[in-house]
Amino acid sequence: MTKKFVYAFHEGRADMKALLGGKGANLAEMTNIGLPVPPGFTITTEVCNEYAQTGKINAETAQQIDANLATLEAKLGKKLGDVKNPLLLSVRSGAPLSMPGMMDTILNLGLNDESVVAHGNNTNNERFAWDCYRRFIQMFSNVVLETGLHNFEQILEEHKHKNGVKLDTELTTDMLKAIVKDYKAAVVKLTGREFPQDPKEQLNMAIVAVFRSWNNPRAQVYRKINKIADSLGTAVNVQSMVFGNMGMDSATGVVFTRNPNSGEKEFYGEYLPNAQGEDVVAGIRTPYQISHLKEEKPESYDKLFELCELLEKHYGDMQDIEFTIERGTLYMLQCRSGKRAPIAAIKINVDLAKEGKISKEQAVLRVEQSQIDKILHRGIDPKAKVDIVATGLAASPGAAAGVCCFDPERAEKLVAEGKNVVLVRPETSPDDIHGIVVSQGILTSRGGMTSHAAIVSRGMGKPCVVGCEAIKIDVEKGTFTVGNRVINEGEFITIDGATGNVMMGLVPTVDPEITGEFQQLLEWADEIRTLKIRANADNPADAAKAREFGAEGIGLCRTEHMFGQGGHHPERMEVAREMILAENLEERKKALEKLLVMQQEDFYGMFKAMAPYAVTIRLLDPPLHEFLPGEEELAIEVAVNKATGKVDAEKEALLKKVKALSEINPMLGFRGCRLGMIFPEIYEMQIYAIFQAAAQCNKEGGKVEPEIMHPLIGHVNELKFLTDMTHRIGKEAMEKTGTSFKYLVGTMIEIPRAALTADEIAEHAEFFSFGTNDLTQTTFGFSRDDAEGKFLAQYVEKKILPENPFVTIDQTGVGKLMSMSADLGRKVRPEIKLGICGEHGGDPASIEFCHKIGLTYVSCSPYRVPVARIAAAQAAARAKGAAATTSTL
Amino acid sequence: MTKKFVYAFHEGRADMKALLGGKGANLAEMTNIGLPVPPGFTITTEVCNEYAQTGKINAETAQQIDANLATLEAKLGKKLGDVKNPLLLSVRSGAPLSMPGMMDTILNLGLNDESVVAHGNNTNNERFAWDCYRRFIQMFSNVVLETGLHNFEQILEEHKHKNGVKLDTELTTDMLKAIVKDYKAAVVKLTGREFPQDPKEQLNMAIVAVFRSWNNPRAQVYRKINKIADSLGTAVNVQSMVFGNMGMDSATGVVFTRNPNSGEKEFYGEYLPNAQGEDVVAGIRTPYQISHLKEEKPESYDKLFELCELLEKHYGDMQDIEFTIERGTLYMLQCRSGKRAPIAAIKINVDLAKEGKISKEQAVLRVEQSQIDKILHRGIDPKAKVDIVATGLAASPGAAAGVCCFDPERAEKLVAEGKNVVLVRPETSPDDIHGIVVSQGILTSRGGMTSHAAIVSRGMGKPCVVGCEAIKIDVEKGTFTVGNRVINEGEFITIDGATGNVMMGLVPTVDPEITGEFQQLLEWADEIRTLKIRANADNPADAAKAREFGAEGIGLCRTEHMFGQGGHHPERMEVAREMILAENLEERKKALEKLLVMQQEDFYGMFKAMAPYAVTIRLLDPPLHEFLPGEEELAIEVAVNKATGKVDAEKEALLKKVKALSEINPMLGFRGCRLGMIFPEIYEMQIYAIFQAAAQCNKEGGKVEPEIMHPLIGHVNELKFLTDMTHRIGKEAMEKTGTSFKYLVGTMIEIPRAALTADEIAEHAEFFSFGTNDLTQTTFGFSRDDAEGKFLAQYVEKKILPENPFVTIDQTGVGKLMSMSADLGRKVRPEIKLGICGEHGGDPASIEFCHKIGLTYVSCSPYRVPVARIAAAQAAARAKGAAATTSTL
Repeated sequence: MTKKFVYAFHEGRADMKALLGGKGANLAEMTNIGLPVPPGFTITTEVCNEYAQTGKINAETAQQIDANLATLEAKLGKKLGDVKNPLLLSVRSGAPLSMPGMMDTILNLGLNDESVVAHGNNTNNERFAWDCYRRFIQMFSNVVLETGLHNFEQILEEHKHKNGVKLDTELTTDMLKAIVKDYKAAVVKLTGREFPQDPKEQLNMAIVAVFRSWNNPRAQVYRKINKIADSLGTAVNVQSMVFGNMGMDSATGVVFTRNPNSGEKEFYGEYLPNAQGEDVVAGIRTPYQISHLKEEKPESYDKLFELCELLEKHYGDMQDIEFTIERGTLYMLQCRSGKRAPIAAIKINVDLAKEGKISKEQAVLRVEQSQIDKILHRGIDPKAKVDIVATGLAASPGAAAGVCCFDPERAEKLVAEGKNVVLVRPETSPDDIHGIVVSQGILTSRGGMTSHAAIVSRGMGKPCVVGCEAIKIDVEKGTFTVGNRVINEGEFITIDGATGNVMMGLVPTVDPEITGEFQQLLEWADEIRTLKIRANADNPADAAKAREFGAEGIGLCRTEHMFGQGGHHPERMEVAREMILAENLEERKKALEKLLVMQQEDFYGMFKAMAPYAVTIRLLDPPLHEFLPGEEELAIEVAVNKATGKVDAEKEALLKKVKALSEINPMLGFRGCRLGMIFPEIYEMQIYAIFQAAAQCNKEGGKVEPEIMHPLIGHVNELKFLTDMTHRIGKEAMEKTGTSFKYLVGTMIEIPRAALTADEIAEHAEFFSFGTNDLTQTTFGFSRDDAEGKFLAQYVEKKILPENPFVTIDQTGVGKLMSMSADLGRKVRPEIKLGICGEHGGDPASIEFCHKIGLTYVSCSPYRVPVARIAAAQAAARAKGAAATTSTL
Repeated sequence: MTKKFVYAFHEGRADMKALLGGKGANLAEMTNIGLPVPPGFTITTEVCNEYAQTGKINAETAQQIDANLATLEAKLGKKLGDVKNPLLLSVRSGAPLSMPGMMDTILNLGLNDESVVAHGNNTNNERFAWDCYRRFIQMFSNVVLETGLHNFEQILEEHKHKNGVKLDTELTTDMLKAIVKDYKAAVVKLTGREFPQDPKEQLNMAIVAVFRSWNNPRAQVYRKINKIADSLGTAVNVQSMVFGNMGMDSATGVVFTRNPNSGEKEFYGEYLPNAQGEDVVAGIRTPYQISHLKEEKPESYDKLFELCELLEKHYGDMQDIEFTIERGTLYMLQCRSGKRAPIAAIKINVDLAKEGKISKEQAVLRVEQSQIDKILHRGIDPKAKVDIVATGLAASPGAAAGVCCFDPERAEKLVAEGKNVVLVRPETSPDDIHGIVVSQGILTSRGGMTSHAAIVSRGMGKPCVVGCEAIKIDVEKGTFTVGNRVINEGEFITIDGATGNVMMGLVPTVDPEITGEFQQLLEWADEIRTLKIRANADNPADAAKAREFGAEGIGLCRTEHMFGQGGHHPERMEVAREMILAENLEERKKALEKLLVMQQEDFYGMFKAMAPYAVTIRLLDPPLHEFLPGEEELAIEVAVNKATGKVDAEKEALLKKVKALSEINPMLGFRGCRLGMIFPEIYEMQIYAIFQAAAQCNKEGGKVEPEIMHPLIGHVNELKFLTDMTHRIGKEAMEKTGTSFKYLVGTMIEIPRAALTADEIAEHAEFFSFGTNDLTQTTFGFSRDDAEGKFLAQYVEKKILPENPFVTIDQTGVGKLMSMSADLGRKVRPEIKLGICGEHGGDPASIEFCHKIGLTYVSCSPYRVPVARIAAAQAAARAKGAAATTSTL
């Protein structure tokens, strides 16, 4: 049996998208469920791929096209190129995924100097026939012969001018005939040959043109940006023409089964009487609302409404449908899932499930992360007029407007004066935090999706656009330039972190709306998911926000911020430095006593905010030099002092200490539990503060079971030492406070060695929390601070790496370690709690992986909690075999 | 049946050392093979461990001691404390491993005011009996009652003074009686009780004292330094006394079955007539050479010689034997494997094997790494008088003498003046290399066994002492201080890298001798081992040295030194900088063309030196900023210039470039194959140079098959890209040169992700070379540059880590990755070549691990090759079940 390369519409199905393309598969599905689809056939994507390699269409395909064409002719009683009853065809491309950039449509194929006459006779409209012919030559020449449109437009203009007419519709039959003549002459001049008169040749040329368009530059770029595989290929749909422009009893239009902007259940769309599809799109005539059709052609309207309802029910999704009425007969030309606004998407999913058209699982599975991102943040008012001057990477969604400002200190001042500020920096560093905190949004000209600005902004739920290379910032002057425009401090700008757009002026924004439907969807997600969702937070305000968004605990409370790191609590920095610069244990203990009071208060606040949920507190993690001034700056200051005869003994002493603590590779240096091993008094203080705070809460009736987490464990002996320390202090604190409560001791798994020896470590750990940021750094040997700009961006672009591993977990490498570690841990301690607290905890693909390897929870920034709830539910649903689309399609 | 806690000598065996201690086991063995050993019994180490926990000796042990004592009394016809025929005992400690620091020996136990009289009668020597009693009280008081010796020595001196005598031997019986009286009074005064007169009480107290001594501070420190487990415990040997001091027909002495200094097969030792063991050791009387005994007491000598021969044959090793002749009867008191000089150890091993007393495998297994280290380097002349002023860590063996110098530039100058120099620095860095190269040896006050100075020196086979904290260096003044002594530049010092000693003056040294026996042993090792041994070298001189030491190829040729890194080829640094600072591809290619010529010459030299052995060339690995000046210095220079009104635009431009290349964690940054991925032209140049050089060699008839190694691979796509590049250039170069030869393309496995995905990587790699330095850094998350001083040394000291993982492979973690990786690699490519080229390649314990996981070769610095050959043979022999000692012992 020969292989099937061509499918008549009735031979296909909706689930054959890979072979027939989206359009072809849907035309087939509609045909099969009895809808009035003009008959035709589809040439498969396999032929496209073969064509890409050989530059030819194989003989079998050619035969199958002929056979299908013959069947079509027989069915309709028409013949291609017939001088009495000519068959006219449309030829359309149709890839498995919607792909603008390829050839779209050729209409009226089959017309030539003879059949145009018959077409006029048969439609009783000679002018119409010649207009079709003119349009066909123009379209075919442009798309198939690749002549461009310019010459044809010029000819048309000349004729209009000569005849003194303004609109196309004013052209008479004779004028059109003259235009056709000139068009054909132009084709000869541009291509060196006559316009093809043989309709079969026209068809073959059109088919090849579709295949060729798969690899045109526009299509290639589109695929690259949207990560669509080159190997998909496009199908070609050949369909008999119907005409919405055969008089006032004809019409053509587009309808949606629901409102794509609001999601409301209403019949929504437009149509034009006596028109072809392109007229609706072209916007020359103003179309009617679809409701108008009910009055004009109630029968057609009812039929259309009925068929659309049928289609929505059949597909289980809101449909976008093209139809044509030819002399009172309704034809369905295309149907597909309709594009919709994020808010509408949510509403439609929920409504469909409530109407019983899809399951709750399906409703949840259809939600996309980007939709939630957009819903949960302020957005640009869709009605606003915008002046987009540049576009960067959409790093943290939401719209922010304010005066632009280039310096964190200035930002604080401007905010104090009551202004809203957008902070504009080449890139940000921890030194800028105070400026970031007070700003409405952040715009940087450098950095990627995991740059400091991006991460910090996402963590704060603050709008952020990064890597906007089109703007040139001069921090010293306080200006940025984009093209020829210079924008000064104090001028208004607006950024949209959901699109990456940078706009001039104060663009109106709209508040996020958590509709009832979104709430409903999140509740369904909670029913479906098995993964718990926690949040990363280190202050009661963030904890409360996380809870509001549905977090079921804190998975990571970083204590370094409580020591003044990164611009938080600046007043505490001094005490932290006192501790670090202490010359001996006694001095250090004095500083630690002060910190103890603060820490106890911190933890008390966290416990209060989250009770009765768990709070996992990570003991001090960063290298101590992060709390001191930068070495280079200080060294310069001291050297310049010396060179200019100034003496500052204090600075010199500080420099010595900073040098002593400085490290070549701080990421792999003296940090994490290594601090607690060498300076146990620091961890002792923190542990004591945790127990005292928990005791206080428990006494007040708020049940608290703290989880104490030791970071950066690499060897079981470290954890053994620290676990013993924790229990000793726990016992002491409970005795002293007269309380007794449960608590857990556990560790981060963020060093490959810990993952490899997780069985040994589980002997002493009641929980593991995968620190996938550091685990990715050490497993790949990538310093996140250095890699992004130097080579990682290029690795991702050149597909050396399929994904940025700091955004989505690298399942093959890092994931293998995680999975091994989880298995080893459970082998020793079956009830062990397993979580993740790296950036990946908010990434849907990574969450799915966490579900697969059986983690207990994921922990992410508060603003990612809703995304995580949905993603966790999707993972659970998919694991049970559920799919977003109806399985029979 | 009750447990056995006490063994009569005839009940034990030599292989019961763990239970009976070394001394007890050997006494038992001698007894059982029929040697004349004074009878006695041994209390096991288990009793010691129980005592350490409970502070008591259990009742069963007490009963078994009584029973054994009764048997002993019956056998000898004597009774403990008997007034007619008193039994006298020695009580000695004896741990499973030789352990100075514990209680050693109590002699003459059993004497009291009554038995002393009987002892005098029985020996016909009243004075002798009272002298025994005096000594016993003194020894017992000191060791068991812990009174110290001081008071007793004072009493003895007073009596000598009073009686006008000078030597102990001049004391008369009456004088001794008076001394005993005063001794006993002193005991009452010092302890508050009478000297115990009950011999059974004396025995019990002595036994407890031995157990107690196991945990005295001296013993604890010794165990810590020598890594002996606290849980071993010591046994107690209770033996009937024999007397070498019963007149001129008595004697006592120590003999070795071979010369412990030279290893010559000769009866070697000393004895004293009419003396007790302690007299030989004390050195008051000059003992006779053992040959003298042959003349004095030929019968005893012949018997002794015969028994010693028997013992050596029985134990299969050179023996160190204590004997006593009591009134003409020979007794053997102790035997053990004799300590020997390194050179003697080698000779003895080889001779024993040639004599058929041990196997070749045993001969090889007995060699210790430290022995080879000491043999292969110049040593301090053993006859020289030395003035040791400080001791540091013995980082790289060998003795070096020269004028001390504190600055690498000064060192070059002094050497140019014809002086030998010892470079003294607080610590060294790559900037000091030119000074290290010209110096005889290196001394640092900071740093550990894996500090820069230690690693570089070992690599160069240059003597080095590091971490010598007793010396305080003032680089600016050009002095160092130790105690009160100040040593200036230009003064002579001598260091011994085998012991860590720092000596004043020019101490004479001796050349290393590779004796015929050592050569023989290495040949045996080559027969036994299955692991191949390669060397790490990047210049022909080192390659030749490696070959001389037996290397079978180069496992790692680092190309960065050829670019001028680390002070090598300083003239090339300029070209390397030209390449790095190039503003565009064209400029960079110009610099690369210059480097191509140099590289081709480099590789040609290496291939020539090693042909037909393989040379594995690693492409450029370090981050590019290592070729540029340091950022901080440069920033200071620029800032000071600015502050003082100077302008240096070139420096400012350089600083910008340096800043652009600087990294927060260079270890995890833009280096290794990442350079080759982003700047392919660099690797292309290197690959081209390799192929051209190999082609040249092959044309000249020297068969060369280069192995091209891509460093720091983390993802298979990197290697795929680089392997394709390598093959493409290989084809091109062969076509151009008209040659055709085999070559291999492979990768370092030094990133955890590479190890985890070794199956994917093996699809494109023909060999793996484990870069265990970096693999240890990333698997542990330890920066070697930072960890050592900040926490790693403390981790090892506190036994958080059993070993420094940069010295000996961490088998549990890093080793697990290696073993996993080797298995995954072989699964995909069964013939894959597997090697190791990290520092661990020269560490015996790590080499044994490499043998276990089935590597093809280890590669180490040239000077470690002999150690590696032996270690590889030991691993192979042990894997086949061979043991260093005879299995029946």
